[in-house]
Amino acid sequence: MKIEGIPYRTIWLKTDEPGCIQVIDQRYLPHQFIVEDLRTVEDVCYAIQDMHVRGAPLIGSTAAYGMYLAALHASEQDANVYSRMQATANQLKATRPTAVNLAYAVDRILAALQPEDSRESCVAKCRQLADEITEENVVQCKKIGEYGLALIETIARQKAPGQPVHILTHCNAGWLACIDYGTATAPIYAAHEAGIPVHVWVDETRPRNQGANITAFELLHAGVPHTVIADNTGGHLMQHGMVDMVIVGSDRTTRRGDVANKIGTYLKALAAKDNNVPFYVALPISSFDFSIADGLQEIPIEKRSEDEVKFIQAWSGEQWHQAALTPKDSPAANYAFDVTPARLVSGLITELGICQADEAAISRLLAFE
Amino acid sequence: MKIEGIPYRTIWLKTDEPGCIQVIDQRYLPHQFIVEDLRTVEDVCYAIQDMHVRGAPLIGSTAAYGMYLAALHASEQDANVYSRMQATANQLKATRPTAVNLAYAVDRILAALQPEDSRESCVAKCRQLADEITEENVVQCKKIGEYGLALIETIARQKAPGQPVHILTHCNAGWLACIDYGTATAPIYAAHEAGIPVHVWVDETRPRNQGANITAFELLHAGVPHTVIADNTGGHLMQHGMVDMVIVGSDRTTRRGDVANKIGTYLKALAAKDNNVPFYVALPISSFDFSIADGLQEIPIEKRSEDEVKFIQAWSGEQWHQAALTPKDSPAANYAFDVTPARLVSGLITELGICQADEAAISRLLAFE
Repeated sequence: MKIEGIPYRTIWLKTDEPGCIQVIDQRYLPHQFIVEDLRTVEDVCYAIQDMHVRGAPLIGSTAAYGMYLAALHASEQDANVYSRMQATANQLKATRPTAVNLAYAVDRILAALQPEDSRESCVAKCRQLADEITEENVVQCKKIGEYGLALIETIARQKAPGQPVHILTHCNAGWLACIDYGTATAPIYAAHEAGIPVHVWVDETRPRNQGANITAFELLHAGVPHTVIADNTGGHLMQHGMVDMVIVGSDRTTRRGDVANKIGTYLKALAAKDNNVPFYVALPISSFDFSIADGLQEIPIEKRSEDEVKFIQAWSGEQWHQAALTPKDSPAANYAFDVTPARLVSGLITELGICQADEAAISRLLAFE
Repeated sequence: MKIEGIPYRTIWLKTDEPGCIQVIDQRYLPHQFIVEDLRTVEDVCYAIQDMHVRGAPLIGSTAAYGMYLAALHASEQDANVYSRMQATANQLKATRPTAVNLAYAVDRILAALQPEDSRESCVAKCRQLADEITEENVVQCKKIGEYGLALIETIARQKAPGQPVHILTHCNAGWLACIDYGTATAPIYAAHEAGIPVHVWVDETRPRNQGANITAFELLHAGVPHTVIADNTGGHLMQHGMVDMVIVGSDRTTRRGDVANKIGTYLKALAAKDNNVPFYVALPISSFDFSIADGLQEIPIEKRSEDEVKFIQAWSGEQWHQAALTPKDSPAANYAFDVTPARLVSGLITELGICQADEAAISRLLAFE
């Protein structure tokens, strides 16, 4: 996707320096566009944990390149490069617990390595798989866009000509959460390119403000009409017929179709159900965790620092200020995700097609893979 | 209630200057405690509109004292003091459209005035009624606290000894929204005083952050254990049994029991219903609007400036900064209230007792007045 007319992805190898991964440091968007160099596993872990990069598919790719950096920095003298890679895999998986793509990417690479692999062989395999995981996500997101486009077209046909389809989204499941196109935003970009008028209600997404900061930034640069709203607003809009559909992403989806996504998603799903607004979740198949059924009981929910609620990095137009949002002595709690039960999900938009959020439908969809 | 150990109300006549109303300017809480002087109707209108004072009961009282200031500044030569008072009433009622207490207070005073009243007579009547409206609210809130206490006691009895009753509240329906005690907080303060352990989940309440700023400030100064959360969090907490009850305030309640309250209240009511958590609304009878039945169709919802979503007044520890929360060119929308349908309300806690949120039960409650 483009920023100021220049095409970007969210992660790439630095030209002429194959030991350096470059990412857009998303902490400074939309006010500053800063590209960060990641040269070590520690750099990668910190960038994931501190959310310089975020979004389930992107942290998967970033972790994959973290494995590559680990192999690159393994000494030829290391008695066992493989055990070093195993340790790195655990280190990377510990950075964020909820999104399954991270573990998926790291485990996929680890499974391809052999205990007897040389450093060179590890480097080559890691590089190839990290590139593959990254390219696959681009293709998946494009496919998600095509399948989701059909849903938007159907709604558009029921509207007066020129009337936009109003789509609400929560957090950022846009191209900045992926490599390109995005998951929840892919159908929106596809519709916009196809000339279907769309308008996006962008949930601010407290406490990290990924909607107000990142989704709004993306849509603005893509020329898609949008309006930022406080997270509290979606229910009111749905009660008054101002939302035609909801599309969100997913950090982990169980085999029954329960969806872990950014905290607050569940509240929007309840409001959608209460007002007969279709509620769709867009996700690559890699976001499924087939090992679990009951999302509420089984998906670990990351609890982050209370300081993300108590303070905000505020941009005054020239510089950043650390600003207090609560009384100094009031404690805060910061649960990063919640689980939307499958019963509230109208459908799952994947790269293989759209299916209902239930075990049988998900199995049928995957049978055609 | 007390701040740093000193008892305060939210509005009072300045000692030795009966033409000056003093209020706590709530825009600067919790970081600065500033008392503002209001000497003219224009001062009063601006303080209400710009939310130096907020909360349905408090804006009712402030508007009542606005009528008093209008009478005070009427010239003896005014051909018709009464028509001036009528104009002031309209001016005050236009400041904020959703809360009914404002119109209630102003209309009650206007009804007591006669076209032939002298300036002195108007001043005396306005002063007396403004004092009355203010004192009544204190008594009402105390009663609401007593009735609500019984609900908390019942839950506490079902818990292991010493385990706190977890109460979630949205926005600020505390003493700072009223004159003293508050509506939603009155039962909490009563329980705390009675030695029942309580813990309050405080919704931040975007975009104006009344929860993080004001409710947290109140509870901290009252010594009530509490935790600030992003508005997105309540659903997750309820799914995991971490909320025993919800208590919120109301800006306007229809005769059928539909409740207009701060935007986002409806989402919490949906989550409470979905998880069998009791959802109570605490309100003085003056917050009822018996002229309307269907809150969704009939209650006007104030749309405020988009700048309240796009920017934040951020406190860096020494000074305030105007900080941007969105891309400069992204539009925002700012609906201040939503309507929670009566079907989602477990009960209404009023100064006359607790009743179900339906027309028959509300009528029966009022029949005993």
